[in-house]
Amino acid sequence: MPISKILIANRGEIALRVHRACRELGIRTVAVHSTADADAMHVRLADEAICIGPPPASESYLSIPNIISAAEIAQADAIHPGYGFLSENAHFAEIVEEHRITWIGPSPEHIRTMGDKVEAKRTAAALGLPLVPGSDGPVATAEEGLKVAAEVGYPVLVKAASGGGGRGMKVVPDAASLASLMGQAKAEAKAAFGDDTVYIEKYLGNPRHIEFQIFGDGQGNAVHLGERDCSLQRRHQKVLEEAPSPALSAAERARMGKVCADAMAKMAYRGAGTIEFLWENGEFYFIEMNTRLQVEHPVTEMLTGLDLVREQIRVANGLPLSVTQDQVRFQGHAIECRINAEDPRSFAPSPGLVTDYHAPGGLHVRVDSALYAGYRIPPYYDSLIAKLIVYGDNREEALMRLARALEEYVIGGPRTTIPLHQALIEDPQFRAGDYSIKWLENWLADR
Amino acid sequence: MPISKILIANRGEIALRVHRACRELGIRTVAVHSTADADAMHVRLADEAICIGPPPASESYLSIPNIISAAEIAQADAIHPGYGFLSENAHFAEIVEEHRITWIGPSPEHIRTMGDKVEAKRTAAALGLPLVPGSDGPVATAEEGLKVAAEVGYPVLVKAASGGGGRGMKVVPDAASLASLMGQAKAEAKAAFGDDTVYIEKYLGNPRHIEFQIFGDGQGNAVHLGERDCSLQRRHQKVLEEAPSPALSAAERARMGKVCADAMAKMAYRGAGTIEFLWENGEFYFIEMNTRLQVEHPVTEMLTGLDLVREQIRVANGLPLSVTQDQVRFQGHAIECRINAEDPRSFAPSPGLVTDYHAPGGLHVRVDSALYAGYRIPPYYDSLIAKLIVYGDNREEALMRLARALEEYVIGGPRTTIPLHQALIEDPQFRAGDYSIKWLENWLADR
Repeated sequence: MPISKILIANRGEIALRVHRACRELGIRTVAVHSTADADAMHVRLADEAICIGPPPASESYLSIPNIISAAEIAQADAIHPGYGFLSENAHFAEIVEEHRITWIGPSPEHIRTMGDKVEAKRTAAALGLPLVPGSDGPVATAEEGLKVAAEVGYPVLVKAASGGGGRGMKVVPDAASLASLMGQAKAEAKAAFGDDTVYIEKYLGNPRHIEFQIFGDGQGNAVHLGERDCSLQRRHQKVLEEAPSPALSAAERARMGKVCADAMAKMAYRGAGTIEFLWENGEFYFIEMNTRLQVEHPVTEMLTGLDLVREQIRVANGLPLSVTQDQVRFQGHAIECRINAEDPRSFAPSPGLVTDYHAPGGLHVRVDSALYAGYRIPPYYDSLIAKLIVYGDNREEALMRLARALEEYVIGGPRTTIPLHQALIEDPQFRAGDYSIKWLENWLADR
Repeated sequence: MPISKILIANRGEIALRVHRACRELGIRTVAVHSTADADAMHVRLADEAICIGPPPASESYLSIPNIISAAEIAQADAIHPGYGFLSENAHFAEIVEEHRITWIGPSPEHIRTMGDKVEAKRTAAALGLPLVPGSDGPVATAEEGLKVAAEVGYPVLVKAASGGGGRGMKVVPDAASLASLMGQAKAEAKAAFGDDTVYIEKYLGNPRHIEFQIFGDGQGNAVHLGERDCSLQRRHQKVLEEAPSPALSAAERARMGKVCADAMAKMAYRGAGTIEFLWENGEFYFIEMNTRLQVEHPVTEMLTGLDLVREQIRVANGLPLSVTQDQVRFQGHAIECRINAEDPRSFAPSPGLVTDYHAPGGLHVRVDSALYAGYRIPPYYDSLIAKLIVYGDNREEALMRLARALEEYVIGGPRTTIPLHQALIEDPQFRAGDYSIKWLENWLADR
């Protein structure tokens, strides 16, 4: 029986995003919401809406019993978790499946494996994904350290096994300084953590964050949908994402994309996933895998023309993906701005009444937002209120379009990060595509 | 010198459309507006705005001296006329060029030729475009009539040369009834117009309106960008347009598109143009050519990915088109709904204050509209207030997306034709793509 009614276990723009995909497939939708979200747009548009508790999220959007009850009351035959909240909770996925409700996501084992840092790295290595090279466990002596560092290549990082916050961590530029710096690291580690165990990793001075969107059908077939460059981050939060990455050639994309797709095929991965890498000097280093839809998935949709939520539902229905690798086209350039209800200088949250709302329109402009005039942004949740995504034949065209769309965007009431994006995309170094994961924080500090 | 400042000699959504293309090219914009349009969105967004008089349009948007003066005051180096108003006024185009301002449109001679019904048909025939077959001028006797009708094929139409409003017009189903019906037509014509001259044309009982978008660079190169099916009309006004036409095969598109492009290349046409045909039983019959951008151009943009206003500006700058025929892709399906401020049953205009405005968003949804909450739709102009355009991999997908986007669209205050579109796209015959230019009027009468 194909899925005919989906409970959307989320809120905000992603709940609306999933609702839209369902509507376009003729699938009925059940919205769940906290008492603070009774007036939310996805609640207004869904076929049914069920209140699952008060804020904070632990009492509602994170309450497994409340969500399962809602699904049973509404007789939903599937649950889409969106991103965040319970989307990467293997336990929740198991409970959903135990209730004979279709889980729109990867198998609970895959969620669990990839959610455990150590397991994820071991699995990634076994699947042929490149890790940050380094010692295989602790390094006891300088002689051993020199040997590892010579294999890895300088500079290397000596890190305390019990460490954190940069203590017991040293960047070693060359062999001559290894013994001395390793000694310092061990001493610091001993002093800070009572444990002088250290290990060695290749040091990445100025990497980019490049992630590959992958999709598996759970039957051993998988494709990659290219990469997204998400290097523009503030406090590990992505601010603006684009594809293709300004740093990558088509050949590099094809090569690394294939490595990712092959890895997913090997594990018979089901649904959407993102394999995140650091990238420096032409080399990829696996960080982690997200076993869900990403916030920035529209970048890939604009580039490939595919509807990723629809593909998720197809796969959950036991259908093959709608495309084979050969049929995936990578054409033009797409950029997404995350617009937050925050002061664009201090980043202090700015919830409250939206007094005026006007989204930009026209050719190759997409807005994913659940805002409307008269809506009151509640203070309890993430500050992301809109995603503005543009497409252009090339990066320059996409940037020009983004500038005009940002200029047209009116959000009255709360402060937003629109002015931040407007300033950012005028920066010559950004326009040149010349940025790493450290760039935005420096740029913000220099403003 | 490339164009650096464009005066947009129009209002409403098309003025905004042109403004957006300019912004994305780094071209400055000059808005002109009537006193009734001082608060219009394109006026707010343009770099400069000049009031050119009061309503009605004859005192402002149709006033050549006022517009030329505005262009001189603002030192605009080009004028984009949009559609309607002065866009097909050859005299205006000449005056613009005399003032050494770049005219973003075809040569004045081409505008003039195609604006004259008789000249347009003669030119079309000379260029190899198929006309409605019929007598070469008046038909005096029944014998002559039988001969023409035999060549053309039954049914034929006998029409009064001085006629109009259906008087002196008879549909002749076969040779047996020709003499008698032709006699009746002549008698009616004599009585009504004092002139019994009649001519004969092939009768098209149930044709579709299919038009080809063409583009010429003025240097003898031209491409076609496929067709649009605009058969859904009420009182000769298009209501919903789509591409590709549900009636046309890829081979027919390629064949007729080439005929059109070759014709345009032969006349060294410059800029955007639309060649309109009636289509029945696999045959095209030229009606007229529009020497400007059409209201429904976004349908073609969604299908091909091209920005037609940008192409217009390229060509006006003396540049070649950005694509060759081989590079034009026709992929998926696009549909446009014209949303009017009208009662959806009586079609009575419904201007006034827009109290609430929320446009749909998400994947493959485009809105071209200059509305905003708080805007007052003036009673002086066309009732078109928004164009909703969707794209899908196929017609079914596009229709599902259109339904969900119409459902999300909120325009508070004036009555709009949104409910009409919602009902229309649920009709089984429409969904089957089985409609002619007569279909919508019948459907409306049957509601």
